Amino acid sequence: MQIAIPIFNGFTALDAIGPYDVLSRLPGAEVVICAAEPGEKRTESGVLGVMADRALAEVERPDVIVVPGGVGTRNHLEQGDPYIRWIADVHPGTQWTTSVCTGSLMLAEAGILDGVEATTHWAAREALAELGAVPIAKRVVERGKVITAAGVSSGIDMALTLVERLTGAELMAQAIQLGIEYDPEPPHDTGSLEKAPPELVELVMSALKAEDEKAAELHSLSL
Amino acid sequence: MQIAIPIFNGFTALDAIGPYDVLSRLPGAEVVICAAEPGEKRTESGVLGVMADRALAEVERPDVIVVPGGVGTRNHLEQGDPYIRWIADVHPGTQWTTSVCTGSLMLAEAGILDGVEATTHWAAREALAELGAVPIAKRVVERGKVITAAGVSSGIDMALTLVERLTGAELMAQAIQLGIEYDPEPPHDTGSLEKAPPELVELVMSALKAEDEKAAELHSLSL
Repeated sequence: MQIAIPIFNGFTALDAIGPYDVLSRLPGAEVVICAAEPGEKRTESGVLGVMADRALAEVERPDVIVVPGGVGTRNHLEQGDPYIRWIADVHPGTQWTTSVCTGSLMLAEAGILDGVEATTHWAAREALAELGAVPIAKRVVERGKVITAAGVSSGIDMALTLVERLTGAELMAQAIQLGIEYDPEPPHDTGSLEKAPPELVELVMSALKAEDEKAAELHSLSL
Repeated sequence: MQIAIPIFNGFTALDAIGPYDVLSRLPGAEVVICAAEPGEKRTESGVLGVMADRALAEVERPDVIVVPGGVGTRNHLEQGDPYIRWIADVHPGTQWTTSVCTGSLMLAEAGILDGVEATTHWAAREALAELGAVPIAKRVVERGKVITAAGVSSGIDMALTLVERLTGAELMAQAIQLGIEYDPEPPHDTGSLEKAPPELVELVMSALKAEDEKAAELHSLSL
């Protein structure tokens, strides 16, 4: 079974690596990190480089796709973009089409979420609605063969759910959860829009806005 | 403030990327991914390549180090190994010396955990004790300026704690937690040795053993 994770400059590392570290432990799964052009892709901050080993064009019939998000999605939200074309092309043949964070914007741009309930990073719900999806405030949303996850860290929860669907049983998901010792103890209870006080939401919104502006600037420099 | 994350072939991606994605959001933090020899390092499965941008020798006075684990640690647990030497050399000058998963074995080999309470992946507690530390069954253990975290996913919890120590307040840790939407909903409650049924522990132990044997084989082929 082939599981393809497309990456691009400006992706959020944990969006991709959370699911990667769960799914690469699934016996029989071949995880492929791919990109429009193979080679090194840098995360949104530019601080981390991850290798895309294969071209999208070489990954023609993946069984599962996991599309990460990040400010870099802004560079791909248009018809004709190679990532959007690839998602639209491979989706009919997948067993599962999934996304983490603003990766759902790319699924929406590819026409997969028209009128479909889906989730994304809490700060991007409006953007998701503008692309035709029906955003709902849940961490993992499964509709037919499409599973979308909320912001960044939620990809771990989504991938464990996916393992359960792929194997048709709880055992392997439980084993992988134990393998990655996923017994989270977040130091605070401020991890979602619904739980965080308004002033904290404001603070994070302005940081995200600044990051997005910086990304736009980097894009204009053709990073 | 410089935060160094050393990586090596056979590291576990999430051990490094969980903390990276938290710490790279801290204003004023410069996160540096480094290795004995700069360049691409592959994870334990060989499936994912991450770039080390700087040589350890160029990172002489990091304020914080975060040492990930993975089966690849087995190739570095000896005096004279460049990673062990670097950890021992920079530790006296750090504000915080931290590890995730079996990264604590490397701290121990570097002489930092002699008689000190620390944690590691649940399956490596005995190995940690053999290196002179005092393993305890906690997800994040803080002793003086040394913070060790349990298996793989625990690095996210550790890094949020670290942000709180670095900033001296809760606000930034809470904001980053909201930024990465860290409001975990693990599908099962089997994520720790203490919570998992014995047959699940057996299953995971044999998978880890197989992985370790495969890593030993790859090492003998000089991956």
